[in-house]
Amino acid sequence: MKHAIFLIQTDDRQGLLAATTSFFSERNINIIECRQYTDLHEGRYFMRIAIDLSTESTRHELESQFAALAEKLRLQYTIHYSDEVQNIAVMVTKTSHCLYDLLMHAEENTLGNGRIVMIVGNHPDLEAVADRFRVPFYCYPVVKGREMEQEAELHPLFEKHHIDLIVLARYMRILSDDFIRRYPQRIINIHHGFLPAFQGSDPYRQAWERGVKIIGATAHYATAELDEGPIIEQDVVRISHEDTPEKLREIGRDIERRVLTRAVAAHLEHRIILSNRRTIVFGR
Amino acid sequence: MKHAIFLIQTDDRQGLLAATTSFFSERNINIIECRQYTDLHEGRYFMRIAIDLSTESTRHELESQFAALAEKLRLQYTIHYSDEVQNIAVMVTKTSHCLYDLLMHAEENTLGNGRIVMIVGNHPDLEAVADRFRVPFYCYPVVKGREMEQEAELHPLFEKHHIDLIVLARYMRILSDDFIRRYPQRIINIHHGFLPAFQGSDPYRQAWERGVKIIGATAHYATAELDEGPIIEQDVVRISHEDTPEKLREIGRDIERRVLTRAVAAHLEHRIILSNRRTIVFGR
Amino acid sequence: MKHAIFLIQTDDRQGLLAATTSFFSERNINIIECRQYTDLHEGRYFMRIAIDLSTESTRHELESQFAALAEKLRLQYTIHYSDEVQNIAVMVTKTSHCLYDLLMHAEENTLGNGRIVMIVGNHPDLEAVADRFRVPFYCYPVVKGREMEQEAELHPLFEKHHIDLIVLARYMRILSDDFIRRYPQRIINIHHGFLPAFQGSDPYRQAWERGVKIIGATAHYATAELDEGPIIEQDVVRISHEDTPEKLREIGRDIERRVLTRAVAAHLEHRIILSNRRTIVFGR
Amino acid sequence: MKHAIFLIQTDDRQGLLAATTSFFSERNINIIECRQYTDLHEGRYFMRIAIDLSTESTRHELESQFAALAEKLRLQYTIHYSDEVQNIAVMVTKTSHCLYDLLMHAEENTLGNGRIVMIVGNHPDLEAVADRFRVPFYCYPVVKGREMEQEAELHPLFEKHHIDLIVLARYMRILSDDFIRRYPQRIINIHHGFLPAFQGSDPYRQAWERGVKIIGATAHYATAELDEGPIIEQDVVRISHEDTPEKLREIGRDIERRVLTRAVAAHLEHRIILSNRRTIVFGR
Repeated sequence: MKHAIFLIQTDDRQGLLAATTSFFSERNINIIECRQYTDLHEGRYFMRIAIDLSTESTRHELESQFAALAEKLRLQYTIHYSDEVQNIAVMVTKTSHCLYDLLMHAEENTLGNGRIVMIVGNHPDLEAVADRFRVPFYCYPVVKGREMEQEAELHPLFEKHHIDLIVLARYMRILSDDFIRRYPQRIINIHHGFLPAFQGSDPYRQAWERGVKIIGATAHYATAELDEGPIIEQDVVRISHEDTPEKLREIGRDIERRVLTRAVAAHLEHRIILSNRRTIVFGR
Repeated sequence: MKHAIFLIQTDDRQGLLAATTSFFSERNINIIECRQYTDLHEGRYFMRIAIDLSTESTRHELESQFAALAEKLRLQYTIHYSDEVQNIAVMVTKTSHCLYDLLMHAEENTLGNGRIVMIVGNHPDLEAVADRFRVPFYCYPVVKGREMEQEAELHPLFEKHHIDLIVLARYMRILSDDFIRRYPQRIINIHHGFLPAFQGSDPYRQAWERGVKIIGATAHYATAELDEGPIIEQDVVRISHEDTPEKLREIGRDIERRVLTRAVAAHLEHRIILSNRRTIVFGR
Repeated sequence: MKHAIFLIQTDDRQGLLAATTSFFSERNINIIECRQYTDLHEGRYFMRIAIDLSTESTRHELESQFAALAEKLRLQYTIHYSDEVQNIAVMVTKTSHCLYDLLMHAEENTLGNGRIVMIVGNHPDLEAVADRFRVPFYCYPVVKGREMEQEAELHPLFEKHHIDLIVLARYMRILSDDFIRRYPQRIINIHHGFLPAFQGSDPYRQAWERGVKIIGATAHYATAELDEGPIIEQDVVRISHEDTPEKLREIGRDIERRVLTRAVAAHLEHRIILSNRRTIVFGR
Repeated sequence: MKHAIFLIQTDDRQGLLAATTSFFSERNINIIECRQYTDLHEGRYFMRIAIDLSTESTRHELESQFAALAEKLRLQYTIHYSDEVQNIAVMVTKTSHCLYDLLMHAEENTLGNGRIVMIVGNHPDLEAVADRFRVPFYCYPVVKGREMEQEAELHPLFEKHHIDLIVLARYMRILSDDFIRRYPQRIINIHHGFLPAFQGSDPYRQAWERGVKIIGATAHYATAELDEGPIIEQDVVRISHEDTPEKLREIGRDIERRVLTRAVAAHLEHRIILSNRRTIVFGR
């Protein structure tokens, strides 16, 4: 069953839900799922509507009719179709656990309609993993002092392959502001710490030194402010005084890959709306 | 801000959401929160709508107008008002942890508009706790072979005090089918096991003997089938081989009280709809 | 069954476990529980031994003999007896949930051999709670600019009543360095955030603004550095975008009281050894 | 650093810890880790000792000397060496998530010294996965009415390849009692339910029908009693009324693979001692 998903936000007012749902009801379009959220602090209204597309009207008709409604109601919105493939580029360095998890879930078709079309490494180490899953591997090493050259090569590559989402799967380089600004809400990063605690490098050692009893990982949209982007998903695990920093790193890997994969799935299923620095993540 | 809550269920059809929300929108009534759920397996539609009551129309008008809509759409529904106090009777035996938790939360006003108006014990042990919180304590001991006499005395007591909800806070007697049938979806029980595992008595010993690594507790509506009523809330905690059955009991107390209090709060906040043996619990 | 608990730390060397356990074995003393931990990064050895005291030798004999062993092995240690009551002063301001939880657990005898002997408030609000449990309440308001006078009054009070442990149960004043240094490893504080994230004031609002998906609470020994003391216990709960800062505060209360009570129990059961800024917490 | 691990159990008596640790201390052997557990209900003592092997005495000497001690103290024990590779056969049917997880962790060297040397399927579906990781795949289809023939072929295969551990990674056939008895405490199975709830087939549907709020998975040693073997590891995840049985299956996959991998790691790291139907699992 094909469906379309509308992600909507606007200033909170009375009647928004009735007006929007009536739009579909009048066209005999079945609403499969509808979720709303009102941020009373900011006075903003957020909505995700999934509709059945097995209807007579074309997508073009539907889009232009909805555009009229949106203009009237001043809705800010995006439309997504369940049969629209989304191309993913996964960027990696040397550690494979997050990459494997994404590849495995892609193969099990639990990443929405996402398709991993390329793996980009700044080191050649994970080429073998890419080969196993028959995904093209591109190696763009970073030469000290010439970092921007590497980034400059990525843009045409991403463009040519119609990349919709860039996943930083433990990519250990900091990308330039300029790079990040080109892909707003289209780069997902995994931080191996429970943000906002332990920003910066080696969060597991920081966690050990501070003697915390629980460690975590955080997936977020990358923004120009390092480790400050809107958080999509987090998870944690209880640890004990016996766990060395090395052991924390090992334990952490299972959280990192879980959190990153869940965040990527939420994005690909169009369940996320951005509200300044916060994410509204509908549904599971 | 006063509000009314509509709990609705009906057969799933197109246009239900638009029709229902338009009803309020046409009357300039603000919808504060709206939640839906479609059970595709059963073809049923469930809905919780919270509306702002600071409107000119009286409750009576609203109710009769909504009744007309409900008849047209064949909605099964109940209406609840945020300023309607709900009277709670807590039934206990000898253990105090669940009772304390309920009293504490009632005092902190986190049990919706619930008010604990009486504590009923089949033993006198917890009278002192009731006294501390200045709640009347009724002691109705059970005499072997004359169990029904005790139950017979409870009905007029509950009726006189307009009891809306009976909470079995580790009440260690099995109530008769007849008793339970009188209060459909109005008796909440806490089972000190992770149902459906460990039904029956001494679940912590059962758990220890089976060597499980996680124990839990389950709050459910009491039905004629012991430990088989619709589950409202569950929670668990990780244990280790070192924990004796006695220790499990102690650990379990913290889960039991948490789970029971959360279930009672969900009921009092009108967030639960029953669908056969399953509960739809909206929101947190 | 009476028992004694030895908390030991020393530089890591070979044979420490054999030497220490042989000491008891040669005296026909039964070891009930023995836990060790070696911090390989710091080269330190930590040990908790619980022994059966139903033996012929007196405590005095045992202590002087063990002192000889400790000198030989250069052990740093403390000895605690299971029948030694520990006097607790709980310091509060206006919120009652942590206080209630401690009182309830004390009543259920799950706080080791701890006894809450006084409640000290800088506001009179919680006197009624203290009265209910028949615990003396002392009100020492803080006058702006004369904070030290309040603290000066507390010392003789604590001394007279042989206070062993001070629990800051959402006590909303910052105590002076001088005060804190007088009670090393004897003041436990609850921070309503998942430290080291959200230090300082109103951590729930900070958490909301940062858009985290999980919130937590942290119990730690108070040190001169605010919110930087050794962490004893932490716990977390998953939240959603729908939870307002107010709701987070409410949800947080259940974590705070759980975490604080667990930390206090661990301290009273002599399961904690300090290693610089980190705690070794043995057992559950 | 090479080390040896002793797993010991015996009747609880005084002096066991001192006697055992002194054995090593007298030989100037460094104890890296020592864990004990006394089951007071059964009067049994359990112990795991890891020692440093960088010593002058040979393994043969050490073993014969320890045998003498064990005879004197009536210890039941096994010895394991950190440099002894353990050969694993993974048995599968059609679902790949558990298999992938094991292969991935084997590659990351987080399965102790386990080595996956073969994958056995009763269907050919997962041969491609085996190929990717360059592990031999054996397909032994089960012919109705001739199930024993398949099993008969497995024994020589396992023997020839020195299989130490058989992992049933969602292997969807019930093995015969005779088969299971041949490999005591050497077959680990994953059950996709929170045992002892939901034994038997399709536990996710059972869970949905019962309306539980939390689902789980259980790894256990296979015994002749189906789903009744000693539990090694369990984990759970919170679900909601919105999750269909199909969705539960998808969610469950992440728990299953996590739980199975953790159980396999605990076995391979020699952290498990069996005590009747319960497992003592030391350390993380």
